[in-house]
Amino acid sequence: MTGIRIHPESTPEQSDISQGHAGSYHGGMSAQPPLRIDRQRLLDRLAELSAVGGIEGTTGSSRLAFTDADRAGRGLVVTWMRDLGLEVSIDAIGNVVAVRPGTEDLPPVMTGSHIDTVRTGGRYDGNLGVLAGLEVVETLAAADITTRHPLAVAFFSNEEGARFAPDMMGSLVYVGGMGVEEAHDTVGIDGVTAGSELERIGYLGSMPCPGPAPHAFVELHIEQGPVLEEAGVQIGVVEGVQGISWTEITIEGQSNHAGTTPMRLRHDAGLVAAEITTWVRRLANEIGHPQVATVGAIDLHPNLVNVVAATAVLTVDLRNTDEATLQQAEQALRIELDRFAKAEGVRISTRSLARFEPVDFSPTVADLIDQTATDFGLSTMRMPSGAGHDAQMLARVCPTAMIFTPSRDGISHNPAEHTDPDDLEAGANVLLQVLRDLADGAAV
Amino acid sequence: MTGIRIHPESTPEQSDISQGHAGSYHGGMSAQPPLRIDRQRLLDRLAELSAVGGIEGTTGSSRLAFTDADRAGRGLVVTWMRDLGLEVSIDAIGNVVAVRPGTEDLPPVMTGSHIDTVRTGGRYDGNLGVLAGLEVVETLAAADITTRHPLAVAFFSNEEGARFAPDMMGSLVYVGGMGVEEAHDTVGIDGVTAGSELERIGYLGSMPCPGPAPHAFVELHIEQGPVLEEAGVQIGVVEGVQGISWTEITIEGQSNHAGTTPMRLRHDAGLVAAEITTWVRRLANEIGHPQVATVGAIDLHPNLVNVVAATAVLTVDLRNTDEATLQQAEQALRIELDRFAKAEGVRISTRSLARFEPVDFSPTVADLIDQTATDFGLSTMRMPSGAGHDAQMLARVCPTAMIFTPSRDGISHNPAEHTDPDDLEAGANVLLQVLRDLADGAAV
Repeated sequence: MTGIRIHPESTPEQSDISQGHAGSYHGGMSAQPPLRIDRQRLLDRLAELSAVGGIEGTTGSSRLAFTDADRAGRGLVVTWMRDLGLEVSIDAIGNVVAVRPGTEDLPPVMTGSHIDTVRTGGRYDGNLGVLAGLEVVETLAAADITTRHPLAVAFFSNEEGARFAPDMMGSLVYVGGMGVEEAHDTVGIDGVTAGSELERIGYLGSMPCPGPAPHAFVELHIEQGPVLEEAGVQIGVVEGVQGISWTEITIEGQSNHAGTTPMRLRHDAGLVAAEITTWVRRLANEIGHPQVATVGAIDLHPNLVNVVAATAVLTVDLRNTDEATLQQAEQALRIELDRFAKAEGVRISTRSLARFEPVDFSPTVADLIDQTATDFGLSTMRMPSGAGHDAQMLARVCPTAMIFTPSRDGISHNPAEHTDPDDLEAGANVLLQVLRDLADGAAV
Repeated sequence: MTGIRIHPESTPEQSDISQGHAGSYHGGMSAQPPLRIDRQRLLDRLAELSAVGGIEGTTGSSRLAFTDADRAGRGLVVTWMRDLGLEVSIDAIGNVVAVRPGTEDLPPVMTGSHIDTVRTGGRYDGNLGVLAGLEVVETLAAADITTRHPLAVAFFSNEEGARFAPDMMGSLVYVGGMGVEEAHDTVGIDGVTAGSELERIGYLGSMPCPGPAPHAFVELHIEQGPVLEEAGVQIGVVEGVQGISWTEITIEGQSNHAGTTPMRLRHDAGLVAAEITTWVRRLANEIGHPQVATVGAIDLHPNLVNVVAATAVLTVDLRNTDEATLQQAEQALRIELDRFAKAEGVRISTRSLARFEPVDFSPTVADLIDQTATDFGLSTMRMPSGAGHDAQMLARVCPTAMIFTPSRDGISHNPAEHTDPDDLEAGANVLLQVLRDLADGAAV
């Protein structure tokens, strides 16, 4: 992966699929005429699902994994799946897979995402990928088209990890990256286990994990970042996922009176937290794009105006598409922490909160997405995903790629999350055509 | 004031008052033979008072102003005052003044401090000054000595400001720096008013504020800093109080996903908070001693590992004994905030939380303290107070100075607060002799 690259052959002005015009599909890898999803039906389902656990006065939702709100959201989506005549199965970690049979007995081409949210979630994160999958099925059914491979629409459990760690738990268990028992034993932020909550809400299913490998997997998702919007591009062709390194840093200094302690006698944990924070920004700038580095959380103790902080706990989030560079950044951080500790006379300890190596998606599937979008007259951009997604787990077992649509102001994990309806529609139409091509035998 | 200056004529080795030896008083400004307070009685009272609102497993206390614990502490001290035959009066802000008559109808020489504590208070902060005052009275009574001026022992309400702002409220109202009504209307951290709480605990007294100006005021207090201990000096002669400037800074940036937002598109409130924090340290170092500068509190929102902080609120505590330099530091901060705001594309607003100009104590009273301690064979050091004290308010209406005793490791506002019993005793004996000299007519 080489970061962001705007597709040279299309510009936003060339798009008409997003303008609601008919019949501008320029070609494509299959011989079939292009179909279009039903924009209003997609928007209606997104709105109806967002009202489950809805956050008053916003378009967002709060459906933490395995809560009553999650159960209600699951119930709604499963009803829609059954109404479409799909065969719904639930596995041991609560992943729900709905299958539309193909003309041949082959592994399904799968799409999907998640419907759990963070506590202050938006309307589109995850939900778009699942409900666009239903749109694909309903559009094919309405056109009386059956693909060679079966089509599967899935929603994976606990993608957000906002109640139970790790995130992407359902898809991780689905591909065998985590045992079912270990996942069940996970204790949530409220002290209960994932397994007991899964049973309580009636989604401890009978299908075993790991589940069967699909023929291919494509996930449509909002970007959750500002890159597409800033570039004025409609479709992100996601070639992989950045590697992620999360470190929690604890600094133990000495609490002292801010008025009576001369500067030279201080061991200020808050100062060291600040030094690390500014250094982390410099590190990102020095390494350059696509490195990102963030100190998002700082907690001082006792956190009073007139007391030199005794302790500080902060987090460092480092991400890069290149594993070697990510390791260099981690190493540089370790060296710097030693230097800061010596200079201020504090003790520093670290704890890894998460570490994922970069994931490369299938170039073939990514090319298919890019070509399909271009044929629709949509502008495209090759890019990595900065956030983690279920697709990165599925990439372990089958050819996989993702489609991104723009996020207004890059805002996500927030009720203000928004994607233009034109962009939602364009993304779903690209998903429809890509799934159809893959299910009819496009090379992977 | 010119910062810290060690008295050249004495060293710690010369002290014997703190070793429990008898009769080494070298002279003094008055003709009377030196008296000694009762060390064990002082320690016992300190221990008994600290048990009121005591923090289990420590020698510290939690007696926030006007709480039930404060009422209980007040009740104990008032009982001691009455047992000593003192005339106790309570004023409209709950200050308690206990008077021992003199031989003449003159304004009293006053000592005292406070008995409220921060939430995690130590045994000595404030309490020492009040209970040493009782020791002075009891020692004089036992020796059947009556001074010319009356002696008054006071404890002032809400010195800590940990529940109701501002700190030093009682002494500020006593000297007329704040109206009684305004003080009563102050809303505490728990939403109740100071006046209603004062009434509830039975300390809304009948004496008017402002109160009568004493002839002179001397306060014994622990240093709450490491300077005396580090220098190996027993008595700090406090010539004044540093000016204090507290500013709350609010930074409004933009919340963004830490994985998906390129560095160049960020408006990171947490980063700016860190930049201010490291700059504040550099500022203190550049100005040099006695400037101190502290960022003790930082709050990020949403304060999550994978979200660029949308907002940050931090505090800057600047102190200097020189008003002009303090103003220069404040001005430099304002300029720097503008620079940071522009560089990161954030909005910064500020709010003054407290601003006190430096206070100069009476050189005559300070000289008397210094000479008295030196005559006792104690080592002394002229120094400013880094913390605020009731004495700085009394200094507005009468000749005033303070006596400091060392704080182990400089720790205060913490149950681990400790001062060696030898030092407590030495400080109380100096207080006794100074008050006696002032009450018998030493020049102020």
